[in-house]
Amino acid sequence: MKIGIINGPNLNLLGKREPEVYGNLSFEEYFTTLQIQFPAIEFTYFQSNIEGELINKIQELGFSFDGIILNAGAYTHTSIAIGDAVKAIITPVIEVHISNTFSREDFRHQSFISGNAKGVILGFGLQSYELAVHSFL
Amino acid sequence: MKIGIINGPNLNLLGKREPEVYGNLSFEEYFTTLQIQFPAIEFTYFQSNIEGELINKIQELGFSFDGIILNAGAYTHTSIAIGDAVKAIITPVIEVHISNTFSREDFRHQSFISGNAKGVILGFGLQSYELAVHSFL
Amino acid sequence: MKIGIINGPNLNLLGKREPEVYGNLSFEEYFTTLQIQFPAIEFTYFQSNIEGELINKIQELGFSFDGIILNAGAYTHTSIAIGDAVKAIITPVIEVHISNTFSREDFRHQSFISGNAKGVILGFGLQSYELAVHSFL
Amino acid sequence: MKIGIINGPNLNLLGKREPEVYGNLSFEEYFTTLQIQFPAIEFTYFQSNIEGELINKIQELGFSFDGIILNAGAYTHTSIAIGDAVKAIITPVIEVHISNTFSREDFRHQSFISGNAKGVILGFGLQSYELAVHSFL
Amino acid sequence: MKIGIINGPNLNLLGKREPEVYGNLSFEEYFTTLQIQFPAIEFTYFQSNIEGELINKIQELGFSFDGIILNAGAYTHTSIAIGDAVKAIITPVIEVHISNTFSREDFRHQSFISGNAKGVILGFGLQSYELAVHSFL
Amino acid sequence: MKIGIINGPNLNLLGKREPEVYGNLSFEEYFTTLQIQFPAIEFTYFQSNIEGELINKIQELGFSFDGIILNAGAYTHTSIAIGDAVKAIITPVIEVHISNTFSREDFRHQSFISGNAKGVILGFGLQSYELAVHSFL
Amino acid sequence: MKIGIINGPNLNLLGKREPEVYGNLSFEEYFTTLQIQFPAIEFTYFQSNIEGELINKIQELGFSFDGIILNAGAYTHTSIAIGDAVKAIITPVIEVHISNTFSREDFRHQSFISGNAKGVILGFGLQSYELAVHSFL
Amino acid sequence: MKIGIINGPNLNLLGKREPEVYGNLSFEEYFTTLQIQFPAIEFTYFQSNIEGELINKIQELGFSFDGIILNAGAYTHTSIAIGDAVKAIITPVIEVHISNTFSREDFRHQSFISGNAKGVILGFGLQSYELAVHSFL
Amino acid sequence: MKIGIINGPNLNLLGKREPEVYGNLSFEEYFTTLQIQFPAIEFTYFQSNIEGELINKIQELGFSFDGIILNAGAYTHTSIAIGDAVKAIITPVIEVHISNTFSREDFRHQSFISGNAKGVILGFGLQSYELAVHSFL
Amino acid sequence: MKIGIINGPNLNLLGKREPEVYGNLSFEEYFTTLQIQFPAIEFTYFQSNIEGELINKIQELGFSFDGIILNAGAYTHTSIAIGDAVKAIITPVIEVHISNTFSREDFRHQSFISGNAKGVILGFGLQSYELAVHSFL
Amino acid sequence: MKIGIINGPNLNLLGKREPEVYGNLSFEEYFTTLQIQFPAIEFTYFQSNIEGELINKIQELGFSFDGIILNAGAYTHTSIAIGDAVKAIITPVIEVHISNTFSREDFRHQSFISGNAKGVILGFGLQSYELAVHSFL
Amino acid sequence: MKIGIINGPNLNLLGKREPEVYGNLSFEEYFTTLQIQFPAIEFTYFQSNIEGELINKIQELGFSFDGIILNAGAYTHTSIAIGDAVKAIITPVIEVHISNTFSREDFRHQSFISGNAKGVILGFGLQSYELAVHSFL
Repeated sequence: MKIGIINGPNLNLLGKREPEVYGNLSFEEYFTTLQIQFPAIEFTYFQSNIEGELINKIQELGFSFDGIILNAGAYTHTSIAIGDAVKAIITPVIEVHISNTFSREDFRHQSFISGNAKGVILGFGLQSYELAVHSFL
Repeated sequence: MKIGIINGPNLNLLGKREPEVYGNLSFEEYFTTLQIQFPAIEFTYFQSNIEGELINKIQELGFSFDGIILNAGAYTHTSIAIGDAVKAIITPVIEVHISNTFSREDFRHQSFISGNAKGVILGFGLQSYELAVHSFL
Repeated sequence: MKIGIINGPNLNLLGKREPEVYGNLSFEEYFTTLQIQFPAIEFTYFQSNIEGELINKIQELGFSFDGIILNAGAYTHTSIAIGDAVKAIITPVIEVHISNTFSREDFRHQSFISGNAKGVILGFGLQSYELAVHSFL
Repeated sequence: MKIGIINGPNLNLLGKREPEVYGNLSFEEYFTTLQIQFPAIEFTYFQSNIEGELINKIQELGFSFDGIILNAGAYTHTSIAIGDAVKAIITPVIEVHISNTFSREDFRHQSFISGNAKGVILGFGLQSYELAVHSFL
Repeated sequence: MKIGIINGPNLNLLGKREPEVYGNLSFEEYFTTLQIQFPAIEFTYFQSNIEGELINKIQELGFSFDGIILNAGAYTHTSIAIGDAVKAIITPVIEVHISNTFSREDFRHQSFISGNAKGVILGFGLQSYELAVHSFL
Repeated sequence: MKIGIINGPNLNLLGKREPEVYGNLSFEEYFTTLQIQFPAIEFTYFQSNIEGELINKIQELGFSFDGIILNAGAYTHTSIAIGDAVKAIITPVIEVHISNTFSREDFRHQSFISGNAKGVILGFGLQSYELAVHSFL
Repeated sequence: MKIGIINGPNLNLLGKREPEVYGNLSFEEYFTTLQIQFPAIEFTYFQSNIEGELINKIQELGFSFDGIILNAGAYTHTSIAIGDAVKAIITPVIEVHISNTFSREDFRHQSFISGNAKGVILGFGLQSYELAVHSFL
Repeated sequence: MKIGIINGPNLNLLGKREPEVYGNLSFEEYFTTLQIQFPAIEFTYFQSNIEGELINKIQELGFSFDGIILNAGAYTHTSIAIGDAVKAIITPVIEVHISNTFSREDFRHQSFISGNAKGVILGFGLQSYELAVHSFL
Repeated sequence: MKIGIINGPNLNLLGKREPEVYGNLSFEEYFTTLQIQFPAIEFTYFQSNIEGELINKIQELGFSFDGIILNAGAYTHTSIAIGDAVKAIITPVIEVHISNTFSREDFRHQSFISGNAKGVILGFGLQSYELAVHSFL
Repeated sequence: MKIGIINGPNLNLLGKREPEVYGNLSFEEYFTTLQIQFPAIEFTYFQSNIEGELINKIQELGFSFDGIILNAGAYTHTSIAIGDAVKAIITPVIEVHISNTFSREDFRHQSFISGNAKGVILGFGLQSYELAVHSFL
Repeated sequence: MKIGIINGPNLNLLGKREPEVYGNLSFEEYFTTLQIQFPAIEFTYFQSNIEGELINKIQELGFSFDGIILNAGAYTHTSIAIGDAVKAIITPVIEVHISNTFSREDFRHQSFISGNAKGVILGFGLQSYELAVHSFL
Repeated sequence: MKIGIINGPNLNLLGKREPEVYGNLSFEEYFTTLQIQFPAIEFTYFQSNIEGELINKIQELGFSFDGIILNAGAYTHTSIAIGDAVKAIITPVIEVHISNTFSREDFRHQSFISGNAKGVILGFGLQSYELAVHSFL
């Protein structure tokens, strides 16, 4: 089983940026524990701050992988183009967020991705990714 | 570990109502499989079509249980009172939805509960409940 | 032929409340004349001020009755849950209102029920119910 | 008893236009059955695609007829002028619609006529007209 | 000096319609007194309930008359097309209203004509027309 | 003199819920001191989390009591039905809130009750009830 | 006959400020010609940039003068207090504007005064005042 | 091949009205060159300022012609009725505009026709019509 | 104990202006009875129609008085500056209104003061002031 | 004559993505037929999923090419930056869309490009590009 | 070189009011250091809580000074009249704010002055004034 | 002292694009004069049309530089992601704009960056950058 994890803008600062909101762990460190936890799954990880590179990766994985876990960060709320990419591919996409976007600013309550995703998981910290993996089992 | 599952209006019709959206299984049948799947957890299940009875149950469980899984159905989008109850208690609450509320009508995109919940899981069918249980493990 | 009439909040005050808007007749008195007018129809009447009890009754009648005439009163404008119940059942529902809701406050112009009802009849005073019965003949 | 039926834009295409929404019967054919059904009533029928001609007819009938049944079609949602005409005359006006305008596009949910009409009947197909006639009996 | 007076929908009912708002005088009667009061001016009077006929008349007078006094009635609030006609011609147009549109419903506060008119006079009853004539002297 | 105090959802948690906002005293404890402070008044106290039960109680007291003090909690902002009940009865109703609803979330700034109440008192903590009693003296 | 002319903020710059919009004449110069044109009328003129001084003057004239001509300038669009003053007095008030406020920014299309004024005259340059005087004759 | 060109309000002023926006050519002159350019096509041309006459013509051509090129002018932005007519017929309709409606006022950015048209072409001056003809080849 | 009462625009007309809304008593007369009713309190009274003078007085009293009772009249709904003054001082401020602002126009439902006040009392006529005094006891 | 065709996000999936909306042909295949159809024109083709690369290309071609045909895909509705680029260059730009964006979701009805483009062509499938080329001839 | 500094409502409380937002220094103290820092400039300082007095001062300085630095405080967000004064004068005006108005309440994000100012500087504490002086050098 | 200047989309066209708005100088030429003016400061300059590359650069400089001057161009109004980057780093960011964004289109009045910036300077042409440098001294 092949699952791709795609992270959007500023998630490369995880562990460094606003730790009271996002925690102290970098995503790379968390990714290692995730691979250990699910040894039967072949994971791919990709992060970019560039909206179009996220689209490129979604398209690249989207016709051969078994699942995509997508945290599009702030692009979640503004990118119709990423939403369209999610809709255009065959692989099911789970939208995840580390923080509870609904307890933050109003402009984070709208998502152009949710409606095209298979499901949404948010607010569990890094555990959101783990729950998303569970959903594919 | 004690976990309460609270379902709101019209979820008692599950298996009967719009099966193309919600599937053919009644929640009671699903609840049995859930108990088997997590034998170490003591589950309580409650359903009501009455907003205030949902609040009563949230208050009742909310100072002694380890977790609440709440699917407030259509009240999700209109009930500030349920949202207040979720905020008022100590037990963490996971908001779940069977369908992907974001791919349905606009008025289902707003939730008065999400901002007060620990996390949100939606769109996975009945598996949403199972993932919510996982989040407490 | 079995037809259920379901009345929502404050309609139990009919004849007592704002008679210049709603008239002097109680609904119970009107209900008697309605039964006399349509002797071939088996009527059931239910009133509650509790939103969820209206849902309970809609669900109870909604898989065996030939028609439901629903005046959800003020819940018409706020209850997605009642609208969902109307959509979830098999029995066709006619939405009625005694007053012309469109000549009153703006917040009475929106209905979460209309879109799921078979038809809407409003503004004819208590005659609205009678016209709704006619629609089933 | 004299009742006028006034139909607005595109209702002359009835039976021809989107039959899945409006049915296969032309209004002229339906009008014949209506006259047979209510032989004691003297009916007048008028259709126009021109907003101002509808106003002219409303004014013409509005001081001598016993009732007007008005389906202003799409002008319902945009014409303050027709709404004013309904308010300006003495004859009571029943607003009718063949389809359930509330289960269609948002811009069909607003009516400049409803607030000035005696009552509103919608969603019953051509039966809407028949129920309107009943309201005058 | 040639001045055209153009009246829109329902103004032909003046003296008959809601006299508490618009008074008891028909416009024809008022027009006679206006002609007597300003004998040096050659007046033309036109009324129609049809939006496009008002446009036709505005276009007809709009390249040869010295002034147009336009009371577009309810079309004032909905007709971009009349507003365009006023903008397209050379003759200056004064927008008038008998009632104070700003003390009535909200939808009467918007005008697609005002911005293209030379000036606006409203709320003076039929005197509004007289003041408009004064503005051309 | 008979005064009824009616409290809405989550006010049964007073003293327990968010004490930094609502204080440490339960309403029952406060109610005792209120009775002592105004010995000449016959008080009735009712609390429910169920919207319709609040309506029932308002109707029950609303034709015989001298005054009602109503804190509808979160239903204040969503319940047209409670607002209608307040309007339908004869007994004057004072709307009270413990916290200053205007210094909290935007959705707490709207009230469907205020416009039908005799007066509004908010932000004084539990003293709001006491001031409301004063208003009846 | 006593008529008061009250001018609001920045109208003291007339003749100096944006002459392409407001012309080259100061209001004082214009006022002289107005007095000559209507010798039978006793005029009072007042200008202030201070909202409350305009209210003071409206109150002062508002129970003894025969008419007030009010150009509240930019306060027209923001001052509920001036609108209330106009409503509170007995003397009829004519709202005037030199420019066509409807062909300028959107925020100049709203007036808190119009609904309380006897009539509105705008867009005629300084002639607007003269037409307002005519309305009192 | 039979193609109908239908022009709405004020387009009869083409060549005369605001030439800096619409050019100096009358539509009749342009129509001649269009006929010469496409000799194989049988063209019909119709213009009216009356909304309902445009609907009449759309209905008349809409079941026998191969294509309709519709410039509804200002009615584009306000006429649900014309939009309905376009949807009701069989002949494909191309919506055209001479000017770029999106670089003009906000209220010209909305179209009730576009969603029902086969395609939209705008901003090319009179060439918009020619491109629309090309689309049928 | 020193309490300041500050009244805003048009409240100097009390007893004179719209008595059906505000009663026949002038505020000065009421103020005398208030002083008699609470002899132990040292009252100061100030009224102005000028927004900035209200701010001056709030600042003047706001660091030495025990309480301020503020009825900012129409400035309540438009003055962020008065709201800021209330927030900037140390003395607690009670916002009062004579009429029930929530049963009047929509623009009177917003207050820039409420969120910064200690409490709000409205709708009790002049008794609102008395209740505000009680709140300081 | 040199014409550039610039395609935005997800248009590289053409022929693969939602063929019921966009057809089965890849853009590369279509581009070949376009070059054959217009042999006199020197075409350049560029596609990117990255917003800024589209801007780079628009800037690169925008001072030397004779025309640009731009389908910015989903960026059409969100990118002020692309709209600015279109405005900043000298080469005229034609905005095209394959589908009729006005018959899809509301958020696809807004374009930040249209107002700066020379013209807009949409809804003709791939023929939209061909018509755009025609506009340059 | 003559520069006027004009401060609006509540800025006279600087050093006293909410020091965590605005600091401990009074503006008078800061003004002294500013004069020392720029000895070649002749400064004038004016503060008022009265909107119209700010307009008076803007008008007074606005035809002879070299620059005005304006912090209109809360009037920034509500005063069209001050915005008009800024537009009406010849002297360039720099809008400054001590706090970052964009990180505060939504109603502080709108400015009626910015669009008419030469430039805007905000968020630098009292240094905002100093930077504004620099802009004139 | 190390200061980074980061420019967003289309600012590479400076001196070439709409010179009436932005002037004739390229940013590179201006940058040279800036370096000469502040010889003690070590400047870094970066421009990109790609949103994510701006984020990359903000992150790169944001933990070691003393200040960042950011002109995000059109991304200012649409990019939550850049706003998040500004918030996530340690280095203070000054938002600058060459033109007065508040005197241009409405969609340029919103900024997702301002609330997270230390300060904002706009409307001074290229001098905006110079003033921003001053703010760090």
